[in-house]
Amino acid sequence: DPGSPVDPAEAEDFLRRCYVENPRLGPVEPRLAIVRAQIAATGTYVHTTDELTHGAKMAWRNASRCIGRLYWRSLMVLDRRRARTADEIYSLLVQHLQTAGGGQIRPVISVFAPAQPGRPHARVWNEQLIRYAGYRTEDGGAVGDPRQIDFTTAVRGFGWQGKEEAFDVLPLIIETPAEGVRVYELPERAIREVPLRHPEFGWFAELGLRWHAVPAIANMRLTIGGVHYPLAPFNGWYMGSEIGARNLADVDRYDLLPLMAARMGLDTSRESTLWRDRALVELNRAVLHSFERDGVKMSDHHTESQRFITHLRNEEKAGRAVPADWSWIVPPISGGITPVFHRYYDEFDQRPAFYLDAEAAELARGCPRRTR
Amino acid sequence: DPGSPVDPAEAEDFLRRCYVENPRLGPVEPRLAIVRAQIAATGTYVHTTDELTHGAKMAWRNASRCIGRLYWRSLMVLDRRRARTADEIYSLLVQHLQTAGGGQIRPVISVFAPAQPGRPHARVWNEQLIRYAGYRTEDGGAVGDPRQIDFTTAVRGFGWQGKEEAFDVLPLIIETPAEGVRVYELPERAIREVPLRHPEFGWFAELGLRWHAVPAIANMRLTIGGVHYPLAPFNGWYMGSEIGARNLADVDRYDLLPLMAARMGLDTSRESTLWRDRALVELNRAVLHSFERDGVKMSDHHTESQRFITHLRNEEKAGRAVPADWSWIVPPISGGITPVFHRYYDEFDQRPAFYLDAEAAELARGCPRRTR
Ligand code: HEM
Ligand code: HEM
Repeated sequence: DPGSPVDPAEAEDFLRRCYVENPRLGPVEPRLAIVRAQIAATGTYVHTTDELTHGAKMAWRNASRCIGRLYWRSLMVLDRRRARTADEIYSLLVQHLQTAGGGQIRPVISVFAPAQPGRPHARVWNEQLIRYAGYRTEDGGAVGDPRQIDFTTAVRGFGWQGKEEAFDVLPLIIETPAEGVRVYELPERAIREVPLRHPEFGWFAELGLRWHAVPAIANMRLTIGGVHYPLAPFNGWYMGSEIGARNLADVDRYDLLPLMAARMGLDTSRESTLWRDRALVELNRAVLHSFERDGVKMSDHHTESQRFITHLRNEEKAGRAVPADWSWIVPPISGGITPVFHRYYDEFDQRPAFYLDAEAAELARGCPRRTR
Repeated sequence: DPGSPVDPAEAEDFLRRCYVENPRLGPVEPRLAIVRAQIAATGTYVHTTDELTHGAKMAWRNASRCIGRLYWRSLMVLDRRRARTADEIYSLLVQHLQTAGGGQIRPVISVFAPAQPGRPHARVWNEQLIRYAGYRTEDGGAVGDPRQIDFTTAVRGFGWQGKEEAFDVLPLIIETPAEGVRVYELPERAIREVPLRHPEFGWFAELGLRWHAVPAIANMRLTIGGVHYPLAPFNGWYMGSEIGARNLADVDRYDLLPLMAARMGLDTSRESTLWRDRALVELNRAVLHSFERDGVKMSDHHTESQRFITHLRNEEKAGRAVPADWSWIVPPISGGITPVFHRYYDEFDQRPAFYLDAEAAELARGCPRRTR
């Protein structure tokens, strides 16, 4: 529970690991004495920048659903704990996206102020910093990303006007205890997008599809040594299948396979022609091709799977267990031919870690705030 | 443990369920009294044909890795408990394959004699009734199915001569307490095979690929109400991806994707061309197309996924929980676009059930028998 005082045992466990993994930080005992006293006096304690930095990396390393963990050491940690106002937070989020970059994308996390036991805290309602709005049409269909329809409705309730097009970047909803809810439009310089085309199908570009370069989850809570950071958006680069096999393909997202199949002239009269599978592969080729052509970093599911196997080997050598969730690690396309398919993993909760709180999930679905 | 006396509680639990699900069997109480007395006197009891039949169906219904459970009621149960000699067993296994059929395949199980506490029992070493031999070549490569190399070596140790071709059907190894190990060649009438061709690629047929029509697992133990049937081979029909995305595609099986890609003229210089995915889809199309053309029943992973969703709905209506293992249920190709991907399942052990014993697994790997 992010609202309760820090558990001294969790703090100690984290600090011991952190200092063992970073000998240059010196002995942990003196630091433990300070932290114990801080917790006893205030119910919490303040991480040093080194602790925060390594703690965030450990949280990534522990993310059991993440296939991209090989480069966990390279995470750039931006210490934003002093930001208070919505304006400050907003401009630091814009800076985050610019730091992550629009081409050679780097993994970045911005860590804002920790939760104080029993006090309200700042948050971003959006599930990711960049997502496309979704609109219900009169005939019951949808324009844009159906997953964002309810959130878009909520944003419109705050006065935002969408263009009602397929790829309208949603504004940020930033809520602070002092200022309530504020709506901020992201500037163009913070939003790199890639127009999608196909290496062979000329007609594909005419579909007018695009996707943003940076996946940045905005609403997960980062927990380090018993301290909770409710606002700690992070990004990596995309694995192509997240866009090509989920965002653009899922029946309850952009649902593009029937359109692809029609344009490709496939026989959709029965499933056994594998028209869905053929359309799916071509959609994914288009995504990878377009990012590659535009010089925007992206990995394919084969390469990222191989990297994850390397990561498992590295961690084993380091004597660390790797929590992993098979159903999230195995890619949604061609699972069986990736090396991550052919083994089991241990699933367990190991901190530091990222958690999606029920309330954050509800806000990202546009649900009105529960009264407390 | 198949070697210990029947647990009366497990017997009672099974019988109660069985009789509740089959009101025409009448009240369970008189039957329970008989079974309790049988167990007390002999350490085990004998299933009626109705109990055996329904118990086998329940075991299928409880197979958490099986996507094909919608038709569990249709299982044809052949009561073979009286067979003793290897010759008898052999001819009944041939009958099994003929009953399953070579075209309109039906799900069949042959249930042989139960294990008697503390006594050795008849078994088939093969993992499936029909599998292709595998041979290690001098250059360290392989001919045939690499998964069967060790088993093939063991079979050759009993004097069998393989043709050393890619699709040599292995003989059955039948072991009985009285006669020891015997090797039986399956007759042609028991082996329906489908030569593989592609709906568009003329060169594909020249690869000389084929696969057998009936997948029949031979070495899992069937447990019903505390009674263990160590020899109870069963078959369904194939879901195409078992052949096209695993048997023929896995790197440690026939490993055909590089060859496919070469023949298709794909750019294999980097993973992001998705040449593996393209080759995989075409291989799977060939499998489905060939079975369809030859009138041999097979389902594709989209249709079988939809059926499994229907099965979940049926079972929910019947008030029964469905154990399911996500990583086995979700197909190895195009997982994300099948409806079974987008939900979680409960995983638990519910009997009657099929189990693969460690010793059976070892024999199927060609390992010499452990001494007891
Ligand atoms: C560097 C490149 C990265 C790649 C290629 C990558 C890849 C992925 C993928 C494919 C998923 C599954 C997403 C889905 O199916 O919805 C995932 C989930 C996740 N990743 Fe990564 N990731 C990267 C960087 C990061 C970073 C920098 C962090 C945190 C510091 C992180 C933390 C997580 C977490 C917490 C999840 C689970 C999200 C959830 O529960 O919805 N990843 N990642
Ligand atoms: C009727 C058509 C059937 C279909 C389409 C089907 C499909 C499948 C598939 C795709 C698997 C996973 C195989 C793998 O990945 O290796 C599987 C596993 C399994 N099926 Fe079915 N099945 C069918 C019939 C049956 C029948 C009749 C039984 C038993 C009476 C059965 C019991 C099982 C069991 C026990 C497993 C797990 C095998 C293991 O652990 O290796 N299935 N099934």
